[in-house]
Amino acid sequence: MKIHLRMRRAATGLLCSLLALPATAQPEPLSASSSDPVTLGWMQGFPPPPEKRLRAADGSFFEFPALRYSVAHMREFMPTVEVSRGLGAPLPLKYRLDPLVDKLRFLPWDSDEPITFADAFERNYTDGLIVLHRGEVVYERYAGALKESGQHAAMSVTKSVTGLLAAVLVAEGRLDESRLVAEYVPELKDSAFGDATVRQLMDMTTGLQYSENYADPNAEVWQYSAAGSPWPKPAGYTGPVGYFEYLAGVQKQGEHGEAFGYKTINSDALGWVISRVTGQSVAELLSEKIWRRIGMEQSAYYQVDELGTPFAGGGLSAGLRDLARFGELVRNRGRWQGEQIIPAAAIDDIRRGGSKNAFARAGFDRLKGWSYRNMWWITHNRNGAFAARGVHGQTIYIDPAADMVLVRFASHPVAANGANDPYSLPAYQAVADYLISLEMP
Amino acid sequence: MKIHLRMRRAATGLLCSLLALPATAQPEPLSASSSDPVTLGWMQGFPPPPEKRLRAADGSFFEFPALRYSVAHMREFMPTVEVSRGLGAPLPLKYRLDPLVDKLRFLPWDSDEPITFADAFERNYTDGLIVLHRGEVVYERYAGALKESGQHAAMSVTKSVTGLLAAVLVAEGRLDESRLVAEYVPELKDSAFGDATVRQLMDMTTGLQYSENYADPNAEVWQYSAAGSPWPKPAGYTGPVGYFEYLAGVQKQGEHGEAFGYKTINSDALGWVISRVTGQSVAELLSEKIWRRIGMEQSAYYQVDELGTPFAGGGLSAGLRDLARFGELVRNRGRWQGEQIIPAAAIDDIRRGGSKNAFARAGFDRLKGWSYRNMWWITHNRNGAFAARGVHGQTIYIDPAADMVLVRFASHPVAANGANDPYSLPAYQAVADYLISLEMP
Repeated sequence: MKIHLRMRRAATGLLCSLLALPATAQPEPLSASSSDPVTLGWMQGFPPPPEKRLRAADGSFFEFPALRYSVAHMREFMPTVEVSRGLGAPLPLKYRLDPLVDKLRFLPWDSDEPITFADAFERNYTDGLIVLHRGEVVYERYAGALKESGQHAAMSVTKSVTGLLAAVLVAEGRLDESRLVAEYVPELKDSAFGDATVRQLMDMTTGLQYSENYADPNAEVWQYSAAGSPWPKPAGYTGPVGYFEYLAGVQKQGEHGEAFGYKTINSDALGWVISRVTGQSVAELLSEKIWRRIGMEQSAYYQVDELGTPFAGGGLSAGLRDLARFGELVRNRGRWQGEQIIPAAAIDDIRRGGSKNAFARAGFDRLKGWSYRNMWWITHNRNGAFAARGVHGQTIYIDPAADMVLVRFASHPVAANGANDPYSLPAYQAVADYLISLEMP
Repeated sequence: MKIHLRMRRAATGLLCSLLALPATAQPEPLSASSSDPVTLGWMQGFPPPPEKRLRAADGSFFEFPALRYSVAHMREFMPTVEVSRGLGAPLPLKYRLDPLVDKLRFLPWDSDEPITFADAFERNYTDGLIVLHRGEVVYERYAGALKESGQHAAMSVTKSVTGLLAAVLVAEGRLDESRLVAEYVPELKDSAFGDATVRQLMDMTTGLQYSENYADPNAEVWQYSAAGSPWPKPAGYTGPVGYFEYLAGVQKQGEHGEAFGYKTINSDALGWVISRVTGQSVAELLSEKIWRRIGMEQSAYYQVDELGTPFAGGGLSAGLRDLARFGELVRNRGRWQGEQIIPAAAIDDIRRGGSKNAFARAGFDRLKGWSYRNMWWITHNRNGAFAARGVHGQTIYIDPAADMVLVRFASHPVAANGANDPYSLPAYQAVADYLISLEMP
């Protein structure tokens, strides 16, 4: 199938950055301050001058440094569906800001020169970072295009939301993880997903013929992107329309259950399963189960395909503090203000983690000993930390031993988190160590 | 300039219904109950079946009866920009529901058969209707695709919001209504708008060569729609990009200041003036001036063109109760909870109205004695009622004598309000009369 160049570039913008590869090779990218989107003036002016205009359809909106603007303005570029917070009063977070956090020093990976947490904030092109300790805000800072009343793209953190929703349905007995995917979604029967179990889908141990290699013009990601694009299909387009129709045509490669393979389409297939089980889109279900129930300040939203399907693999945008509330709900095993909002069993199942052997086969060499469960990343470190992770530096990092929830939004020039992990994961550990030290007698 | 058929149809969907002409001639449209969008199942299912799919790009989403779904889901079809409510607690409205309102009887125009207010609710394809009396809710009802936590297209009610913002800037001394438009927006110097005063723009008494006759393939509205479409321009497109660039090319016809001419492009030109004066888009200004300040329950939003420009002529969607709060702010001459939120002078200038002579030349034969001021419709009836009006039945109707604010969202099959006015304006009068009777000793 021929895919137009424009669509290919659009796909790059819409999707590639959700994945593990850098979208655009930048030999020496601008620094965080030099690439500040407010200074650079993207889409500013009435109308913006031609050189400051960004578009989703040609992919320009997601090329660095422009993406530093776009991550906080996704809805202005494409159709979206609301995740309603409902109409009640938000529940304000309690504050106990600690100016020492910015001064914490740590050794980045492969380095013998310590840097501070504040240094890492800049180095990681951070747009917003909040730390809760025992549910109270000890650190909160915004930069770039993000404001406290704005929303930021969560990228593949979305997958962990999808995975959590599925885990909740399993814990509620509404979804049987041992059944085959095709039993829930008959349209997937002849696809690679058909004879995978729901559990294999939730842990991304499916064997799929699906490449996200953008250098390869025949990589399947191009068809996927074209199918899921919200823009009108070009004349003569004969491919699948929408995420779901694409998924029904995915072919098998290898066996299910053997290796973790980080492929976005698993999350969208899981979204399809969720919708068939509940009769709700993931946007509706997320609103009903969580967003309306824990005092969120803002509604969130998903980008949608042209059939209105929320992009369960990477389309969520939300406020920084709201994602912290979400993380705190998870840290508290589903309890909020004395009420059990979602089953503790769903969280416990995430925290136990998945197969380390399966994970080791996925090639994340720097994440040794980790696993992937219900679309969350489990560090298996001594603190039992686990995380939601999205490209360009998005994360919800939960450290149970430190009673810590850390949420970071960022717009790193390199999509793959391998580029920022050396300055991120040890930074999180430094905060966790510090918070634990505060608790010592 | 050649406009593709697809774009033309899209324009019909996106824009035509904002105006005075029926989009699609329906000899015998379905009734409100027969056209219920939930029953008809638009965009329902995972994925929706082909016959239930609606798209903005081909205009299908705004053909009756499908528009009954789309009016409550605009953001799912196109890019939008938030009008933030901020992060504080909403201010709940007080309730004093009165079941007698539905039973009120009135004579529709040209009829000697009285019908009830509840009959009119159905007959007008009402999606949501709320009545405040002295600031308390005496009536509230939802139907169709609208929920209390949803947002509905306000269509040309948006114009009145734009006009109010401009009136506020005039009252604040930041905008001089006697100056020429080109003094604020030099790009409009060689257009029809250039030598109009800001006041003429605010009252739509500009002389513009601009036809909204959809039957005419050369009507200017097609170029306008193509320019403002958020979708990628077709290959070879050489026309203006975005609302503003289109406005700069509008030619003059007749003289300014003589006749009211209801043309959407005046509102967009006024939005441009507002943005140049304030350095803010109308979405940002509306948030700062009003949406963050009176306890709104939900953020609102505007559809945007491909340059991110909010559609000041018709792109606002908002919650029913929030539009009631907005109306109540206007009724109270800008005061809210003891604080002057916007200058009383701006409201007073609306209420005084505009030139009845200029209005009479515009051909709204059934609205005798009315005028148009700051993009509001002034009835000049004995109660001093005035209104914001949008096609397919949207309205904010404020009756000062009855201490009443009525907001209605609807999805009438006929765009022009002439089709529903006979069952609407006398219904509003009946409620006003009833509320006044309650106040009598």
